[in-house]
Amino acid sequence: MPYGALAQERLAQIAECSKDHIGVTRFPFTDEHRRANAQITNWMERAGLTVRMDSSATLIGRLEGPMGAKTLLLGSHQDSVRNGGRYDGIMGIALACLALEKLKDCEIELPFSVEVLAFADEEGARFPTALMGPRALAGTFDPETLAMQDRDGVSLSKALKSFGGAPDTIADQRRQPDDIIGYIETHIEQGPVLETHDLALGVVSGICGIERNEVIFRGETGHAGTVPMKGRKDALVAAARFIAEVSDRANTAETLRATVGALSIAPDVVNAIPNAATLTLEIRSEADKARLDFADQMRAIGNEIARASGTEFTMRCTYEQLAVQCAPPLIDALNIALEALGHPSFTLPSGATHDASAMADLCPIAMLFVRCTKGLSHHPDEFASAADMSAAINALAAALTQIRA
Amino acid sequence: MPYGALAQERLAQIAECSKDHIGVTRFPFTDEHRRANAQITNWMERAGLTVRMDSSATLIGRLEGPMGAKTLLLGSHQDSVRNGGRYDGIMGIALACLALEKLKDCEIELPFSVEVLAFADEEGARFPTALMGPRALAGTFDPETLAMQDRDGVSLSKALKSFGGAPDTIADQRRQPDDIIGYIETHIEQGPVLETHDLALGVVSGICGIERNEVIFRGETGHAGTVPMKGRKDALVAAARFIAEVSDRANTAETLRATVGALSIAPDVVNAIPNAATLTLEIRSEADKARLDFADQMRAIGNEIARASGTEFTMRCTYEQLAVQCAPPLIDALNIALEALGHPSFTLPSGATHDASAMADLCPIAMLFVRCTKGLSHHPDEFASAADMSAAINALAAALTQIRA
Repeated sequence: MPYGALAQERLAQIAECSKDHIGVTRFPFTDEHRRANAQITNWMERAGLTVRMDSSATLIGRLEGPMGAKTLLLGSHQDSVRNGGRYDGIMGIALACLALEKLKDCEIELPFSVEVLAFADEEGARFPTALMGPRALAGTFDPETLAMQDRDGVSLSKALKSFGGAPDTIADQRRQPDDIIGYIETHIEQGPVLETHDLALGVVSGICGIERNEVIFRGETGHAGTVPMKGRKDALVAAARFIAEVSDRANTAETLRATVGALSIAPDVVNAIPNAATLTLEIRSEADKARLDFADQMRAIGNEIARASGTEFTMRCTYEQLAVQCAPPLIDALNIALEALGHPSFTLPSGATHDASAMADLCPIAMLFVRCTKGLSHHPDEFASAADMSAAINALAAALTQIRA
Repeated sequence: MPYGALAQERLAQIAECSKDHIGVTRFPFTDEHRRANAQITNWMERAGLTVRMDSSATLIGRLEGPMGAKTLLLGSHQDSVRNGGRYDGIMGIALACLALEKLKDCEIELPFSVEVLAFADEEGARFPTALMGPRALAGTFDPETLAMQDRDGVSLSKALKSFGGAPDTIADQRRQPDDIIGYIETHIEQGPVLETHDLALGVVSGICGIERNEVIFRGETGHAGTVPMKGRKDALVAAARFIAEVSDRANTAETLRATVGALSIAPDVVNAIPNAATLTLEIRSEADKARLDFADQMRAIGNEIARASGTEFTMRCTYEQLAVQCAPPLIDALNIALEALGHPSFTLPSGATHDASAMADLCPIAMLFVRCTKGLSHHPDEFASAADMSAAINALAAALTQIRA
């Protein structure tokens, strides 16, 4: 069976390791996770890897290279969101295994060791934390998160232990940067860019930084019939002008994505002027400076709108994550592989966070994006074609032959 | 005691007829209503009126005029919203009684009969209907509303009967228009216009028509990080442009009040593009044509915004109430009275609905507005001064002497 079809078959099979049958629901340290790991172990062994699980419950398949050689890391995460799709995360593990299986089938030996990493938890759907596996490897894991509980009151520590992990020795998983060549993650794009450009594959230039802000406009309520238009201090009208400006200005900035995703107003009744509008402003950019400049610009515009409308404006950053750049040598290896296989080389930013974001604290990173239908992700209808996955397997295998230890 | 101070004292006393002590909560057909009616009966009797309650539970005090003379109606409603103020509605009953008490004290006899009407229910705070009293008089009462229930499952019919009303004979309350001169209602403005103009009193030109629309923008959701700005179909951004346009265009239209009071979006999460925004657009104007034109204009703008943003737009009228014009002879009588008392004559529209709205189906109507602090209403801090109420009593008494049967 061709590798792409094999990937599709394996992903259909492992999708059965799900809590229910609406898409895939596979949280970490569950029976579904255990059953999935059994299948992944099989994928790894077919590629000739030696399999073990580390103390943070990352399933690791290792192909030993020449004595003393460095190690290249591949992989992604096994878990899904609730009722997610069958590609997000798990596809990156499946394709890494198949790329190595292909090299084995072709009897190509690499001048370095390779590990495929199947991380337990990237989505953060069970515990209010995520990325334990890559953080353990990078030495950035915060042991305090072990006390966090899921909805049923089970702590992360307890869940990990019951799964065969070892909360107490997570710090020991830290790798030496000198021993690692880099980390390459293959993932569905989760966006429409590749489809729009009619491309199967794209190479990620960097992972966007993110900031989230809570924006509040406060005005004055009043009867919608008795208060004349002049002199109103309508918090929603002020917020509406702000939201329109966010869109207008982000539209003219090439590198930015700015979204008002949540909004609530008070008193929220048909015949009262709103006196409060609370909204979220999320800004993402590969360039931290562009993101910070945009936030400053929107803060100034918010104040201007407030002054003109007699309202009060506050904007408070509630979350910030810096951008991560992908490593040019790894980007080049992937692009050379793409071109050798007849694909145009194409780079794009990743707007979403990935295991690679945390792995960047350990080593150079790179990502290969695979086209997904309509950019759909975190949804039962999430889809990548066997042909596109086949292209990714070939590109990944070819890139591995380009990399020097 | 001067009449204004007496009004303030009486309103403080009747405010005790409340379900709790946060402002006034006096729903119809309750013990609070019964106790309030006892006090109103006393006010009416002091003014020389003969008191009865009609079958729709309107308390009626009548001063018989010359044989065969027509009747002028005064009054307002006794009920309040939950935790409302001590002026809305009840003040119009108190000041009508005091104006007649003043005329009696001055031994002035009117050439017509007068009735003060204390309607049971204008706010609609207990049952999902209101204005039963004036509708009974106008012959527009819909008996089907008698089956409506309050939160405790008590029907309007049962509540009215237990209060001493007679649901079966409401149709008999219908008055002959030929017998009625008109209806004059005194009410707090519930808006900031008189205060802004530094005026105690204003004469209402008409009661605004109202329409309420449900407006929906539908777009496409997507990940806030992975979907580029270009090509987004953000329902909230479209709605925001619409809301800003509503405000901009209503601001330049002298006679209009347009409000987006309620708004919800979906999926309403920080990192997803909104795919739906549902909002209410309420439009009020004294001129029905201006209101309808504005709705048409906003419908066209909504469609334009939808086209430009790749979203879908719908706008559906869910409620409509035509404007009511006040009667020029009654307006003139009030303005002449104001000027005679040294007040500038000043007319303004009523943005809110009143008992007078329903009385307009029976007879010519007029309204006298009294300044209230900060335009505040439906709130425990609602306030009108004794001096302003004194001016209203004097104006009302003087106007009565201007009116010819």
